[in-house]
Amino acid sequence: MPKILHNNPQLNKNGELQHLLSIEGLPKSIVNHILDTASSFVGISDREVKKVPLMRGKSVFNLFFENSTRTRTTFEIAAKRLSADVINLNIQASSASKGESLLDTIDNLSAMHADMFVVRHAQSGAPYLIAKHLVETGQSHVHVVNAGDGRHAHPTQGLLDMYTIRHYKKDFTNLRVAIVGDILHSRVARSDIHALTTLGVPEVRAIGPHTLLPGGLAEMGVQTYTNMDEGLKDVDVIIMLRLQNERMSGALLPSAQEYFKSYGLTPERLALAKPDAIVMHPGPMNRGVEIDSAVADGSQAVILPQVTFGIAVRMAVMSILAGGRA
Amino acid sequence: MPKILHNNPQLNKNGELQHLLSIEGLPKSIVNHILDTASSFVGISDREVKKVPLMRGKSVFNLFFENSTRTRTTFEIAAKRLSADVINLNIQASSASKGESLLDTIDNLSAMHADMFVVRHAQSGAPYLIAKHLVETGQSHVHVVNAGDGRHAHPTQGLLDMYTIRHYKKDFTNLRVAIVGDILHSRVARSDIHALTTLGVPEVRAIGPHTLLPGGLAEMGVQTYTNMDEGLKDVDVIIMLRLQNERMSGALLPSAQEYFKSYGLTPERLALAKPDAIVMHPGPMNRGVEIDSAVADGSQAVILPQVTFGIAVRMAVMSILAGGRA
Amino acid sequence: MPKILHNNPQLNKNGELQHLLSIEGLPKSIVNHILDTASSFVGISDREVKKVPLMRGKSVFNLFFENSTRTRTTFEIAAKRLSADVINLNIQASSASKGESLLDTIDNLSAMHADMFVVRHAQSGAPYLIAKHLVETGQSHVHVVNAGDGRHAHPTQGLLDMYTIRHYKKDFTNLRVAIVGDILHSRVARSDIHALTTLGVPEVRAIGPHTLLPGGLAEMGVQTYTNMDEGLKDVDVIIMLRLQNERMSGALLPSAQEYFKSYGLTPERLALAKPDAIVMHPGPMNRGVEIDSAVADGSQAVILPQVTFGIAVRMAVMSILAGGRA
Repeated sequence: MPKILHNNPQLNKNGELQHLLSIEGLPKSIVNHILDTASSFVGISDREVKKVPLMRGKSVFNLFFENSTRTRTTFEIAAKRLSADVINLNIQASSASKGESLLDTIDNLSAMHADMFVVRHAQSGAPYLIAKHLVETGQSHVHVVNAGDGRHAHPTQGLLDMYTIRHYKKDFTNLRVAIVGDILHSRVARSDIHALTTLGVPEVRAIGPHTLLPGGLAEMGVQTYTNMDEGLKDVDVIIMLRLQNERMSGALLPSAQEYFKSYGLTPERLALAKPDAIVMHPGPMNRGVEIDSAVADGSQAVILPQVTFGIAVRMAVMSILAGGRA
Repeated sequence: MPKILHNNPQLNKNGELQHLLSIEGLPKSIVNHILDTASSFVGISDREVKKVPLMRGKSVFNLFFENSTRTRTTFEIAAKRLSADVINLNIQASSASKGESLLDTIDNLSAMHADMFVVRHAQSGAPYLIAKHLVETGQSHVHVVNAGDGRHAHPTQGLLDMYTIRHYKKDFTNLRVAIVGDILHSRVARSDIHALTTLGVPEVRAIGPHTLLPGGLAEMGVQTYTNMDEGLKDVDVIIMLRLQNERMSGALLPSAQEYFKSYGLTPERLALAKPDAIVMHPGPMNRGVEIDSAVADGSQAVILPQVTFGIAVRMAVMSILAGGRA
Repeated sequence: MPKILHNNPQLNKNGELQHLLSIEGLPKSIVNHILDTASSFVGISDREVKKVPLMRGKSVFNLFFENSTRTRTTFEIAAKRLSADVINLNIQASSASKGESLLDTIDNLSAMHADMFVVRHAQSGAPYLIAKHLVETGQSHVHVVNAGDGRHAHPTQGLLDMYTIRHYKKDFTNLRVAIVGDILHSRVARSDIHALTTLGVPEVRAIGPHTLLPGGLAEMGVQTYTNMDEGLKDVDVIIMLRLQNERMSGALLPSAQEYFKSYGLTPERLALAKPDAIVMHPGPMNRGVEIDSAVADGSQAVILPQVTFGIAVRMAVMSILAGGRA
């Protein structure tokens, strides 16, 4: 997992959230503020009129240098429920192909009086680069939200996972949490580990084959297991990771069937965890690869509530950044 | 033409419209209610401010598994004029390619508190499958509108065609209506036939080459003609169908020129119908293939009013489903 | 540079702006009215709520037959800040591929009660053709804005360039303006030349290699220079043009490096102009090809203010056309 920047530009001089780039380096008080604010938004989506005017007249740009309809959609919905104007830009097809540099594109959009950039990029660190540039050039009215950068971070996914755990388990300080699968390539895993540590979870486990467990987990306070049955024993929360299709045919893994045999979450394996353990997944799921349908659709799965909470968490992040706190 | 489901899930227990999937099985009272509601929306598009707040804060997802800019645009406009938030999802490029199942995608979007799915799919029955799933899993707050599924149905096109006929002819019960062209592959033809029958049109004719006339028309009460001149004799309404480009080069037809010679609507042929007959076409037209420009641009063509009425009809369907009746 | 139409359909019978197709033939009074109106919009983008209700309920269609995310975005933002509903249509992927004619597409969208078409097309004259058709068929409620057609015109770029010059130089009647680069293929150059002439700029210079200087410049009152140092001498305004990538590998130019040596704007060359000269560029820039980074990021560059003013100018054009003057 790459280190990005030692100077964390996501807080302003007063220690307030200026950009959301990574959960690493985010104070616990800010994480809790986001979760509390999200909580006030959860009810809004159930109302007849699901909109609040907190970002009326603000312009949110979804800058997706890497295609992800699902994530883009969650940000688009969150922004529209805050009454913002949303502009979707698929940058692959655009100026990038005309040879314009990333920062020239950013300066241009910023000159159109953008208020927020939601950035997805295949390159780790791209949102940092953008945030740093905005800070250095005095464009502090524009905020950056990292919507996933390379293998580095996916902070809103980490935050919605924390919201979900808090919703079902109330207290973080007595939990045993297992993250299962391709930890090595997962920005979700990285964001979750930082969030769980920040919030005081005493035991975080990473479960997966040797080839998909990165170095450095021990230094982050994470216990590693290559045997899934041992790793799941008595855990309160199981976070399954998506096995990327490209891994299945690669040299790191034998086959999808083999993987399921060793690391697929079946009802039998789930029974090893605590009886009230919850099962999470960032989606989209590969049924029959990392998770059995009986578990995915079972009573312990909270995968769809994660999606619902995800909208509220993104509304919270955006409204806090825009200064319109709930 | 495939049969889809015997249990029609488009009505709720109280017999109210829950989903719009097909005109087949839709009670006449509901068809008339949609047309009456549309009538109240026709004037809105002429006003200075074309919006009504009936769907303010509602989220409409255009789920287009098959590309159709024109149809997507009509739904997008209709939803925006009702003040809904619209999210366009081109699913080919999205999760489908990540191997997620259709119903997992639906569950995910539904968990984002979608209010309505407008679904276009190359597979006949896909909107049924989605609606059935939503009903079975207790997600009855989400409504499905079929925007065209395979060769099966295109109910809003059928309804806007009925609106157009009613507008110009007032009474359905004394009409002779001819549908001309590739009946075999046309979901428009199928929807129109069901609608015309439901509304009491006494004589429906299908005109086309043997190879493009499906079996079963007689059972539906439709008279078939392979000779266009005979088929057009004394009709009140002519519904021309688009000849799909892929048919022109196929084995079913000789050539576009040959087709025009036998089934193209020319001024001479139009003269065989009643003097006040109207000419309809669902668009986009192939001028010189199924219709002569002199007819398309002539005084009997009501092809552009169809488009205008289409917006009102879609506003009616959406607002009725969302419970915000006009 | 192609001549398009002798009958300029962009003014209605009362001499008011009906369509914005080209700066050629636009009276000075209308140019000034647009610039004055834009001036009232510049402040809006700085406000907390950046929206005004001038186009509430109006439907603006971005019809991009040629891809340009950047230009489309500026019009989308401008329309949304005027509270219009915006529909983005990428027509390559749509009906055009189904063989529908341009004017049939226009009639269809117009029948959906469009209020405005923002048209980008690779073919010179396409927006004229559309405007002419709308006028001839009595659809005078729909307005056309040319967002760039072939090599012909890009009038909103010309207008925002004039806004920028007026902002920094106040008076047009004592200026020396140089346009540098590929004049031959540039619709920006053409629009700028017409605007500068209309506004009374006494000296307009075109600088570039022989192969990229079109004939007819002298007749337009433009002085030509193939030596950049001579051309820049004592000018007040330098408008750099983007060198299209396709030119760099073509027969008209040796190489990007050679081009930069002869026509790249370096600090040394900039020093030949007046000390308070401003440097403009329509973007996206090719740093190191037509412009040195030291100049692009230097104190004389007004390239980002151009972008900001561009939003206000587009808001002005749209609101004037829609009849909702500020």
